[in-house]
Amino acid sequence: MNVCVLVGSLRKASFNRMLANTLISLAPSSLKLDVVEIGELPLYNEDIETAAPPAPWTAFRQRIKAADAVLFVTPEYNRSVPAALKNALDVGSRPYGSSVWDRKPGAVVSSSPGAIAAFGANHHLRQSLVFLNVPAMQQPEAYISHVDKLFDEHGKLVSEGTGKFLQALMQAFANWIETIRSQGQRT
Amino acid sequence: MNVCVLVGSLRKASFNRMLANTLISLAPSSLKLDVVEIGELPLYNEDIETAAPPAPWTAFRQRIKAADAVLFVTPEYNRSVPAALKNALDVGSRPYGSSVWDRKPGAVVSSSPGAIAAFGANHHLRQSLVFLNVPAMQQPEAYISHVDKLFDEHGKLVSEGTGKFLQALMQAFANWIETIRSQGQRT
Amino acid sequence: MNVCVLVGSLRKASFNRMLANTLISLAPSSLKLDVVEIGELPLYNEDIETAAPPAPWTAFRQRIKAADAVLFVTPEYNRSVPAALKNALDVGSRPYGSSVWDRKPGAVVSSSPGAIAAFGANHHLRQSLVFLNVPAMQQPEAYISHVDKLFDEHGKLVSEGTGKFLQALMQAFANWIETIRSQGQRT
Amino acid sequence: MNVCVLVGSLRKASFNRMLANTLISLAPSSLKLDVVEIGELPLYNEDIETAAPPAPWTAFRQRIKAADAVLFVTPEYNRSVPAALKNALDVGSRPYGSSVWDRKPGAVVSSSPGAIAAFGANHHLRQSLVFLNVPAMQQPEAYISHVDKLFDEHGKLVSEGTGKFLQALMQAFANWIETIRSQGQRT
Repeated sequence: MNVCVLVGSLRKASFNRMLANTLISLAPSSLKLDVVEIGELPLYNEDIETAAPPAPWTAFRQRIKAADAVLFVTPEYNRSVPAALKNALDVGSRPYGSSVWDRKPGAVVSSSPGAIAAFGANHHLRQSLVFLNVPAMQQPEAYISHVDKLFDEHGKLVSEGTGKFLQALMQAFANWIETIRSQGQRT
Repeated sequence: MNVCVLVGSLRKASFNRMLANTLISLAPSSLKLDVVEIGELPLYNEDIETAAPPAPWTAFRQRIKAADAVLFVTPEYNRSVPAALKNALDVGSRPYGSSVWDRKPGAVVSSSPGAIAAFGANHHLRQSLVFLNVPAMQQPEAYISHVDKLFDEHGKLVSEGTGKFLQALMQAFANWIETIRSQGQRT
Repeated sequence: MNVCVLVGSLRKASFNRMLANTLISLAPSSLKLDVVEIGELPLYNEDIETAAPPAPWTAFRQRIKAADAVLFVTPEYNRSVPAALKNALDVGSRPYGSSVWDRKPGAVVSSSPGAIAAFGANHHLRQSLVFLNVPAMQQPEAYISHVDKLFDEHGKLVSEGTGKFLQALMQAFANWIETIRSQGQRT
Repeated sequence: MNVCVLVGSLRKASFNRMLANTLISLAPSSLKLDVVEIGELPLYNEDIETAAPPAPWTAFRQRIKAADAVLFVTPEYNRSVPAALKNALDVGSRPYGSSVWDRKPGAVVSSSPGAIAAFGANHHLRQSLVFLNVPAMQQPEAYISHVDKLFDEHGKLVSEGTGKFLQALMQAFANWIETIRSQGQRT
């Protein structure tokens, strides 16, 4: 199973990128995960949705379309989804009738340096996924508090408890992907 | 498949009850649907969650526990879920560790006499379902506008277009239930 | 200024009640705060909204109507507002055209034993307050994590840092009430 | 009073821009409103938040900082705020401690060609405004359904009822701005 991983922060040394890399390394072998970059996508604007849309849009859409599932790893900006990640959702959802998200099983991991762990971003993202027909795994929910304390200077996870949780999460996600994809085989 | 139907309005002549009855009549034969009453449930209060909790709580919990899936049909009160329906969720989720909602596939239909069709109630309910581990069907979303114009004086649906939509919705829900329940067989 | 305090948990020994009592004790002297009980309000049902509605509804509505402002102190149940508190909102909002909430300045404090501090309840409540025309203080937001560690066996706050925060919050709320009420004088 | 107007759609012929222009033309004379463009703002990325950040960021921040209030006019993309508008919020909120939004009174108008009128975008935006300390006018809420039917080919409003509603809205907003700004004079 090919899984695209989208990281909500564009910062190179982002904790969410470290978290994404950790999730990738802990996933069961049935999943092949790759981070898809979203920082170069022009802001969605229907006026440039022509016969020749911006090349980064097209490349992004092809990557998602080819994937079997999507994993979102995101911080919270101003109690909601960072613009860069929302833009990726918007770009992938268009043009009308050609959304690349449709029927891809998904999972959401949110994190923050503080206690609240990006709850607002997590659930605003989930509201978009309803419309985009991305069946999102309900449990385990993943709110990673104090993410800035979880990694060493090489970006390696130092919390054993978090490691076990993330590993179980990825195992559950693999099962969820299999479940949702069985629906397609049935219809 | 046994499906419990919860109606968010307690009013006897409620449009949402008419809508629920219509959904029941349009469902594929693989689904057996029954409305479960929620109006007599005492407000959740942990102090009365004793060895002998209120009888309506116990009866309700047993009904949901025995079901294969849950369908919510609800209006919006003050931009959110009506208290009666939220109370049913709260009662069913307790005591800690014994939630009756866990892993039941679900679907949400919201309606209003106005245009906006209880969008706020629909998505607040969905946020609770994430925590309750009720995998909620994403598409088709169901927002029924102008619900007060859809029925005749006997509570019979008069809009053919809405009837076709609701029938397709119930067919999709039957498929969703089958998909989610296959997960249990796999784990 | 008379301020009604609504507590989202009905449990007698509730941490949110301790929190409410603490907020009352730390408020500036310009505010007179009282907890208004909500546990005996029958679930809202339009069928019993007659010329003689349930006595607890009437008493509650009169209490809120007479108040200058409202303070909500709430836990989260299933990622949203506890049913008891939502019911109080629903009861106070009716009958149509006679809402007792209209134009009362408000503030929201949410808490949980865990880290996430009832963020979901806090913001679902705020969405209802938009509709109810309760101008809710935006800052400081109040998310009280690990509320079960904040009080001694007599319900007395033991965290000095939290005490200072709550005192500043109540000072800001007093200022907010004054601001919003000046609008009424202007119109 | 100088009011910045932010339009959530970047499309030149956007209905939301027509709506914004209409709101500007219907505002009381005490308000001077100008649309601030947001389409050229690079996606927020902390790595380029240096001593010399992108020029469009700086220009945008200065415009908002100089304003007395902010009016948001937005469609919904995928049940949430369009990325372009969320990006404007994110850019204006940084660097940490220098948010230009702080204490500006705000109002939200959402619209859609469909019935539901961007309810999801409206309230996701409001959740961000809580954090950004933009006191947002609660009532009247403004959900403009079927926006594609409201204008003639010159972008002129053709619905008298909507015109009256929008005029009353701008009058209420002028009053709200005055109310909130009086708080600053008191502190």
